[in-house]
Amino acid sequence: MKKQLLFLLILLLSVSAKAEEIKSPNGKFILNFEVKNGVPVYKLQMNGKAVIKESKLGLELKDTESLLDGFTLTKTDKSTFDETWKPVWGEVKEIRNHYNEMALTLTQNASQRIMLIRFRLFDDGLGFRYEFPEQDKLIYFVIKEERTQFAMTGDHKAFWIPGDFDTQEYSYQTSKLSEIRGLMDEAITPNSSQTPFSATGVQTSLMMKTDDGLYINLHEAALVEYSCMHLELDDKNMIFESYLTPDAIGNKGYMQAPCHSPWRTVIASDNAADVLMSHITLNLNEPCAYENTSWIKPVKYIGVWWEMITGKSSWAYADIPSVKLGKTDYSKLKPNGKHAANTAHVKTYIDFAAQHGFDAVLVEGWNEGWEDWHRKSKDYVFDFVTPYPDFDMGELRDYAKSKGVRMMMHHETSGAVRNYERHMDQAYQFMVDNGYNSVKSGYVGNIIPRGETHYGQWMVNHYLYALKKAADYKIMVNAHEAVRPTGLCRTYPNLIGNESARGTEYESFGGNNPDHTTILPFTRLIGGPMDYTPGIFETDISKYNPNNNSYVRSTLARQLALYVTMYSPLQMAADLPETYNKYLDAFQFIKDVPVDWDDTKVLEAEPGDYITYARKQKDADNWFVGRTNDEEARTSKIKLDFLTPGKKYIATIYSDKKDAHYKNNPKAYEIKQIKVNSKTKLSQYCAPGGGYAISIMEKK
Amino acid sequence: MKKQLLFLLILLLSVSAKAEEIKSPNGKFILNFEVKNGVPVYKLQMNGKAVIKESKLGLELKDTESLLDGFTLTKTDKSTFDETWKPVWGEVKEIRNHYNEMALTLTQNASQRIMLIRFRLFDDGLGFRYEFPEQDKLIYFVIKEERTQFAMTGDHKAFWIPGDFDTQEYSYQTSKLSEIRGLMDEAITPNSSQTPFSATGVQTSLMMKTDDGLYINLHEAALVEYSCMHLELDDKNMIFESYLTPDAIGNKGYMQAPCHSPWRTVIASDNAADVLMSHITLNLNEPCAYENTSWIKPVKYIGVWWEMITGKSSWAYADIPSVKLGKTDYSKLKPNGKHAANTAHVKTYIDFAAQHGFDAVLVEGWNEGWEDWHRKSKDYVFDFVTPYPDFDMGELRDYAKSKGVRMMMHHETSGAVRNYERHMDQAYQFMVDNGYNSVKSGYVGNIIPRGETHYGQWMVNHYLYALKKAADYKIMVNAHEAVRPTGLCRTYPNLIGNESARGTEYESFGGNNPDHTTILPFTRLIGGPMDYTPGIFETDISKYNPNNNSYVRSTLARQLALYVTMYSPLQMAADLPETYNKYLDAFQFIKDVPVDWDDTKVLEAEPGDYITYARKQKDADNWFVGRTNDEEARTSKIKLDFLTPGKKYIATIYSDKKDAHYKNNPKAYEIKQIKVNSKTKLSQYCAPGGGYAISIMEKK
Repeated sequence: MKKQLLFLLILLLSVSAKAEEIKSPNGKFILNFEVKNGVPVYKLQMNGKAVIKESKLGLELKDTESLLDGFTLTKTDKSTFDETWKPVWGEVKEIRNHYNEMALTLTQNASQRIMLIRFRLFDDGLGFRYEFPEQDKLIYFVIKEERTQFAMTGDHKAFWIPGDFDTQEYSYQTSKLSEIRGLMDEAITPNSSQTPFSATGVQTSLMMKTDDGLYINLHEAALVEYSCMHLELDDKNMIFESYLTPDAIGNKGYMQAPCHSPWRTVIASDNAADVLMSHITLNLNEPCAYENTSWIKPVKYIGVWWEMITGKSSWAYADIPSVKLGKTDYSKLKPNGKHAANTAHVKTYIDFAAQHGFDAVLVEGWNEGWEDWHRKSKDYVFDFVTPYPDFDMGELRDYAKSKGVRMMMHHETSGAVRNYERHMDQAYQFMVDNGYNSVKSGYVGNIIPRGETHYGQWMVNHYLYALKKAADYKIMVNAHEAVRPTGLCRTYPNLIGNESARGTEYESFGGNNPDHTTILPFTRLIGGPMDYTPGIFETDISKYNPNNNSYVRSTLARQLALYVTMYSPLQMAADLPETYNKYLDAFQFIKDVPVDWDDTKVLEAEPGDYITYARKQKDADNWFVGRTNDEEARTSKIKLDFLTPGKKYIATIYSDKKDAHYKNNPKAYEIKQIKVNSKTKLSQYCAPGGGYAISIMEKK
Repeated sequence: MKKQLLFLLILLLSVSAKAEEIKSPNGKFILNFEVKNGVPVYKLQMNGKAVIKESKLGLELKDTESLLDGFTLTKTDKSTFDETWKPVWGEVKEIRNHYNEMALTLTQNASQRIMLIRFRLFDDGLGFRYEFPEQDKLIYFVIKEERTQFAMTGDHKAFWIPGDFDTQEYSYQTSKLSEIRGLMDEAITPNSSQTPFSATGVQTSLMMKTDDGLYINLHEAALVEYSCMHLELDDKNMIFESYLTPDAIGNKGYMQAPCHSPWRTVIASDNAADVLMSHITLNLNEPCAYENTSWIKPVKYIGVWWEMITGKSSWAYADIPSVKLGKTDYSKLKPNGKHAANTAHVKTYIDFAAQHGFDAVLVEGWNEGWEDWHRKSKDYVFDFVTPYPDFDMGELRDYAKSKGVRMMMHHETSGAVRNYERHMDQAYQFMVDNGYNSVKSGYVGNIIPRGETHYGQWMVNHYLYALKKAADYKIMVNAHEAVRPTGLCRTYPNLIGNESARGTEYESFGGNNPDHTTILPFTRLIGGPMDYTPGIFETDISKYNPNNNSYVRSTLARQLALYVTMYSPLQMAADLPETYNKYLDAFQFIKDVPVDWDDTKVLEAEPGDYITYARKQKDADNWFVGRTNDEEARTSKIKLDFLTPGKKYIATIYSDKKDAHYKNNPKAYEIKQIKVNSKTKLSQYCAPGGGYAISIMEKK
């Protein structure tokens, strides 16, 4: 009897089901949802133009009926949310989280299972996710594939990298969607761990531009207990569909209701700058999980690193093909003579950091195991607590402390995450005992457990585990080769950095494209800050290593600009102290530039061409401008109307000389000082692969 | 020049290579080795008869030339070893380790790689392994398959269970080798995790008997950092070949030279008893790794367990389909009313243990998470430190202490080993804090990381990790569903128990074959002790749970015998205290029987038919005899000539009545006391599925 009533009710609701709609608070966006022949579909429009055409929603499940069709819309809840919150660190002091929400309860009639789709429509775009409430008929389930569509309105221009379960360290391709298939093979360049999956598979955050000038960005927010999403393009119909990272046995997600997917995000604007200034990703994450965040502080650092990246020095202490931790007696090995992480050498870095006001010194290659850490699928590869014989942990701890400089730990896991987790508590405690409060962790190479990949649910769980456990020890984390960020730094602000893209290191591995840094803020940085490690002044790598003929595809002036354009609370001055000492005038900008901000403005922006940012220093009325330029010479024209009216400022401009060029004359920079105010307009030449940096200090 | 000389040398050695031979110390066994057309081969004979016909040796490697052929014998080292060592606990007080050894250095000419095969020939059989010395041309390598052959001389009778990467909880099949293929399907009975791999794949230890009465046992010893070996039968030629457990991506072993395989063992004798008394497996393991072993003590225990196994009670506190640790508020759940691990009930077990002199009380189902622990591929399934609301950890700790009884911890991992490792330190510390000094760990269900199996290198590493870490906390381990033992308890004597076979629990899941316990000592126990959990007096399971019509395939008298025939330093009296209280006369044997021994004799033995053991109590002149019988009525005839001549003893005989039968009259036992001495001969009736137990106490 009761069942019949329920059925009748569902039937009635089914008949009465209609298209549902919400608008963004400013009315610019309209989101439509309906259940069409049992299939949930949505579409998104902005200012009356379609952004996402009608697209299907649902999930394919393993060993049970899928959640793709047979649905009835049984309930619609609409609400509005508006709050302003303060990030622990960030591009701006306060962030407004303002959206209209629509939660649609869908009942799969035959199975009596319930799935909810929650949309949040902001003034700059959309977030939505699947939710699986507590219920009898759907508790444990395994995702075979998420089938979320993003139907494009045409053959857009896209800034993309190959979809891959293990790496994002690819150069961005700029092409029409229809051209992806043809470009895929050459786009997949070698990496120490890589698993591309399709000729039209691309990664998020994916940046696009339509023929009529609409900028669209697809990504995800709050990736927790789920597999990282890629996008698979149906290039006949220009429909993207979610493609989750599989585990070792091909499954894509293990779920236990109540639970939900991460948020899928669509940022859109006629103005590229709006995409850069969107806070959708952070807003869709949960508020800070820590009560006390006083131990979390932005960090400007130098490190014993670039000299190994260039091949000048080595991580390894000895040149032997195999070691066994605890069995190899390092005191009996012949040192190779180019091991950088030795006590005396590290002290020179500490001296330099102290002299120039850096917060910390990173040292890589300090611990036993670097002789055979790579490409060996070695499980017990590092123990994270045993220094090389020439690295005196105690002496350096005391020396750094005496100089007021923090040491930054390095935990390379080599992908052996069971091994890392086994040593993690001891390793973090060792850091605390030796005065380290931040760690650069690395996941180079294939993951062990074998068959798992960097971006699957298994590893997504691990990265967060490592991050939360670090918080127990008041340790900040900068994870390299980890899954791309999705705004989790709002909830866990000790995640002060990530790599998850092709960083500056590739300038020593053949070079990055000159337009690379004009794209990254539109793609990789949508999810969170990147430890891009800029500041390379010696752009000719052969000066460090005659066997390396790479050169940095950037002028020196642009290297300064990156401290402003590549937002991060963690910034490295990556070049060698000996080099900075040769260019102390330019180095002054790196010394001056803050790593935390009260406000941010995008002055100019076009993905693939240029970006100009202005940012206001935290708790000071100083501004810093940065401009990154692609391979074409361009002139930047900016207004300093962000300055406080009536106030006087001194601007120091670090710019390309007229004859500068990233290829053959990268170090041709000039520095000039001028007085400026809120009415000042600047026209600034930018060389190919160039740019400029400006510090604008309040005149007191 | 140097290279040419080396080549010449190899060539010369190649020409001079000849068949090599060693004999066992007693001359009974002869082992022959030679390199035939570049392929290493061996054969084993006993008393002039072939045990293993000419068989190939070698390994197939991944992505590189295999180590199968192209070899030259470049060096032969022969030596003799003879020592006597004392186990921390065991069947005997002292063990003689006496063998002749031959180490053959093989050079693969083309690759210049070196592999060594080491044979140890004992008076009761053979052990051999592959060794990979430190060298330039072979450092890291991945095993695709080990290709070790054991060529049988005929179509032997075998006592086998299906080869499987996840379970050994199968009933033994007794058949000709040629019949394995036909019986495999029905031999593969359901299990919560199982991965059989072939129609002729069987597990070790494999027990065989030839037509002319030779008993042969194949197994392995010291399984460390390697995958568990199964045997794949070529049933045309009756050749077994090693078949290693693969990992999630199909690889079978990750090696870094210097390293070696486990030992492959062949025990052989005309007398079945010699197989039971062989110490080859222990002798091939390394000496004890711990300096202090005073904390390792054999344990006789009872536990809150059988009542859940029978379905009388439950592990779970509530009957709900899903819980989330840390999120589910157990205090608000409705108890199901049959949760056994509650404070008051556990106290009755502690009382019983104290009253009858048991060392410890195991309690399963004490911790949150049992509502949905099973078959859900649930990662965060238990935290090992959070008791159910009705289990007062502090109160029970104090109560047990006041009664002089130890609590035994239970860590069911549900196969989620990452989760277990994450909690392990805390879990062990929690044990120490609450007075627990032993843990029964469990690995029910499929392994997480998914794609790994119970017997692969990954898990082999885990079990040893858990064991060594337990030692750090002075904790003894009894691991269920773990890989079958291979004598590691010599090196790590805190491994006081393992399951790794079909134990008594199956008597409540449909029953074990009556001959099961006449086979286990020849198979499963060759590697180490088993926590078989005997002592079930109420053989009609429906008395505990009307919905369970299983019955124990054993007479009550035989349940007593198992304490002697199933050697273990860890013995459970598995039935309920309320049941033991009904049969206190029979229960007296369980109270009397020790769990540690000075000496052991096999009085009668025929695999599949019967076994009779006599064992001398540690540090006392009391002996205990146990006889297990198959489904046929038999009469056991034994001599008590192991008793000290001239001394008087009182023997208490617990035996089947004439009308006893495992099927319909299992509880028909009788107890009589007689005076005995070293000249006494006994003739004792054993019912179908029956047996007897005798305590022989020195008359003082």
